[in-house]
Amino acid sequence: MPPPAIPEPAHAEVDSMLSRKFGKEIANYFAGSPLNRVSFLRTDNVFLSAALKHPSTSFLLFNNLAPLAKDSTQLEYVNFEDVRPLIGDDPYSKSEEQMIEEYNSTVTISQLLFLGLDEDKRSGFEWKSIYHGSPYFALDVTPKGSVSSAAEKLIETVKSRSLQFVEGRMHMSLPAPQAAIYAQARALLDWNARNPFCAGCGQPTLSINAGMKRTCPPKDMASVTEQSSIGSTTDAKPAKDRPDCVTRKGISNLCFPRTDPTVIMAVISADGERVLLGRQKRWPPHWYSTLAGFVEPAESVEEAVRREVWEESGVKLGRVVIHSTQPWPYPANLMIGAVGQCVPGGEEIILKHDPELEDAKWVNMAEVKEALEVGTSGLGEDPEPGYKEGGLRLPPRTAIANQLLTAVTGGFLEGAVTAPRI
Amino acid sequence: MPPPAIPEPAHAEVDSMLSRKFGKEIANYFAGSPLNRVSFLRTDNVFLSAALKHPSTSFLLFNNLAPLAKDSTQLEYVNFEDVRPLIGDDPYSKSEEQMIEEYNSTVTISQLLFLGLDEDKRSGFEWKSIYHGSPYFALDVTPKGSVSSAAEKLIETVKSRSLQFVEGRMHMSLPAPQAAIYAQARALLDWNARNPFCAGCGQPTLSINAGMKRTCPPKDMASVTEQSSIGSTTDAKPAKDRPDCVTRKGISNLCFPRTDPTVIMAVISADGERVLLGRQKRWPPHWYSTLAGFVEPAESVEEAVRREVWEESGVKLGRVVIHSTQPWPYPANLMIGAVGQCVPGGEEIILKHDPELEDAKWVNMAEVKEALEVGTSGLGEDPEPGYKEGGLRLPPRTAIANQLLTAVTGGFLEGAVTAPRI
Repeated sequence: MPPPAIPEPAHAEVDSMLSRKFGKEIANYFAGSPLNRVSFLRTDNVFLSAALKHPSTSFLLFNNLAPLAKDSTQLEYVNFEDVRPLIGDDPYSKSEEQMIEEYNSTVTISQLLFLGLDEDKRSGFEWKSIYHGSPYFALDVTPKGSVSSAAEKLIETVKSRSLQFVEGRMHMSLPAPQAAIYAQARALLDWNARNPFCAGCGQPTLSINAGMKRTCPPKDMASVTEQSSIGSTTDAKPAKDRPDCVTRKGISNLCFPRTDPTVIMAVISADGERVLLGRQKRWPPHWYSTLAGFVEPAESVEEAVRREVWEESGVKLGRVVIHSTQPWPYPANLMIGAVGQCVPGGEEIILKHDPELEDAKWVNMAEVKEALEVGTSGLGEDPEPGYKEGGLRLPPRTAIANQLLTAVTGGFLEGAVTAPRI
Repeated sequence: MPPPAIPEPAHAEVDSMLSRKFGKEIANYFAGSPLNRVSFLRTDNVFLSAALKHPSTSFLLFNNLAPLAKDSTQLEYVNFEDVRPLIGDDPYSKSEEQMIEEYNSTVTISQLLFLGLDEDKRSGFEWKSIYHGSPYFALDVTPKGSVSSAAEKLIETVKSRSLQFVEGRMHMSLPAPQAAIYAQARALLDWNARNPFCAGCGQPTLSINAGMKRTCPPKDMASVTEQSSIGSTTDAKPAKDRPDCVTRKGISNLCFPRTDPTVIMAVISADGERVLLGRQKRWPPHWYSTLAGFVEPAESVEEAVRREVWEESGVKLGRVVIHSTQPWPYPANLMIGAVGQCVPGGEEIILKHDPELEDAKWVNMAEVKEALEVGTSGLGEDPEPGYKEGGLRLPPRTAIANQLLTAVTGGFLEGAVTAPRI
């Protein structure tokens, strides 16, 4: 397999004051999307309708969160004619206000997402003479409810083209820009699928904002269907009001996608000569990584780094610096990568506070550096050629853990005075 | 009013390699908690029970998210005897397994939170000879359901001590360690109150893990109550199974508190001599701040900074560096503060993409620096003495926006070569 791709930063890397002082920006895998999300156009159904039907538009299909692909190294897209039998001629023909007004909880709508415009592809699509590029959508084709047979038919059609829905985590082998598109689509389809009900009132919700919002409609036409007897028309009967819901008053965070901030940190000893690594029981022998954990409510990232390191390893940190971040779509994490330094004398390892790790240990910089050269791989794969059995094994370059360790064994600490000031 | 307190970092600031290279760590307001959360003890009901009843234990009460306080500069705590009439002799007498087994959705339980141990207070409380300090809990005393009268009585009792439940955002005037305790309690009480139902299946949920988790129990004793006729005992009738729920299979993020990552950024021009500021319509005249926005799913922080700045102002950024973070408990944000630098020629301001801002403009470093000295205040307050009418106004030191602007006008860029390399 070719070495995993690392994304180029989406902006041109310029020789700016910031890069001269802090070094080159690290763009981690799953970041580096080629798409402009033009988020402010998601509420405009006329825009969405035009983008949906443009000949240059690409649709990424997912069946139970498995994306359509040629193989695990190449996503495949279909066009509007392919998806029309499932989504109809124009699912964006109505405004959001109308969709909410006509909401019927018994009707299944396949989840459709607008992902953004690929501005590098001058495809003829433009909007208001300002925004242009090839539109990207994602569509959930999982057979369910009233769309089961149309979805199954669509799945058969695309499979007949020698394509497949690739199961599992695709994070090892996609080219970086594809991985970013996949991550955006997967995270949002998963969020919609995970949250069919309103956490505020327990009633079913409706997807709006092209997949970026779920709203709790005040009425449900399902009540009309229930009331009506055979032969009657539903037109004359108004939909029943649903019970009150707090999410309908003002803006509620519950209506928007959830992203869970996590911390992941390369920890160096007070003298800067060793790195703290930990391992979980289920990992292969000799495999270690950086420590990590969820940020809790009302905690800064820096505090979360110190808390997690102490809870999992007993080690006490002083200064924490944030290095870079990585979106992680399993299901919805934002990994915030940091470097932390031990306070003098705080290196003692204690695993009994929170027994999450099987082991934690201090490793010399030189050993970490060597393992980054010969001991990295995906969890289920063999290490690089040159690896000697029994040597330290570490995560691959697509993992932010690898980038953090590369930073502390490389130039990140460059320029820091190691001898104490007098 | 005294100038707002800025927290000291919870760790001793040491002269480490990291601080020598990157400067002193900025601890923002609402961070800097004096409590050790000992998160791994939250599932241990025997620990919680002992901590709850210790004479050194403090309870922070909230009525509709307003905390009990002497005034807006000083929280007040009550003790176990005060809260016993509302929570009973021991709400932690049963294990979580038992609580889930006996779940009854018709019974109101006042939300109780374990916040942590204040290790600086050697109060005699210790656990397993390892963990010690004064325990802190928070309790929601909002009158509702079956606890209404007990809650109202408790509210009357504490009010008779010349204490009050202070409404509004307390972020301007509490001492920093108090603000951090308040933020933790408020964020978690709000999350529990906002999420009474399971977003996966629509059924009511139960608080466990001392307030840090909500679970979707498989049975509900309420069904027994409904089934039973007058005079019968419920003992012989088993609770009915509830419909299946996906959150009961493995670990679901829906069961844990939600924190929404946001970006907030000081943007400097390509030549490093000006700062981009924006203002919202509802702000007082001459008031500006940094730009900010929510991180979207599958987006790195660096990408979110570039996207938000372009969407709100049209300005195009290159390198982005993360500076510090601030928890923001209204209701559940993690503000990730960054500094971004414009690409050469990318300074043109365009407000028509996402019309969120009323205005955006480039301001010289010297003017920003002066406004940080004489033009800061809380939104509803007067600026510092020395402010001249018509001058730039900026957020107070308790806001991370202020810290970011202080950084870019101060030492943060120090050492960066401003002349282009040959």
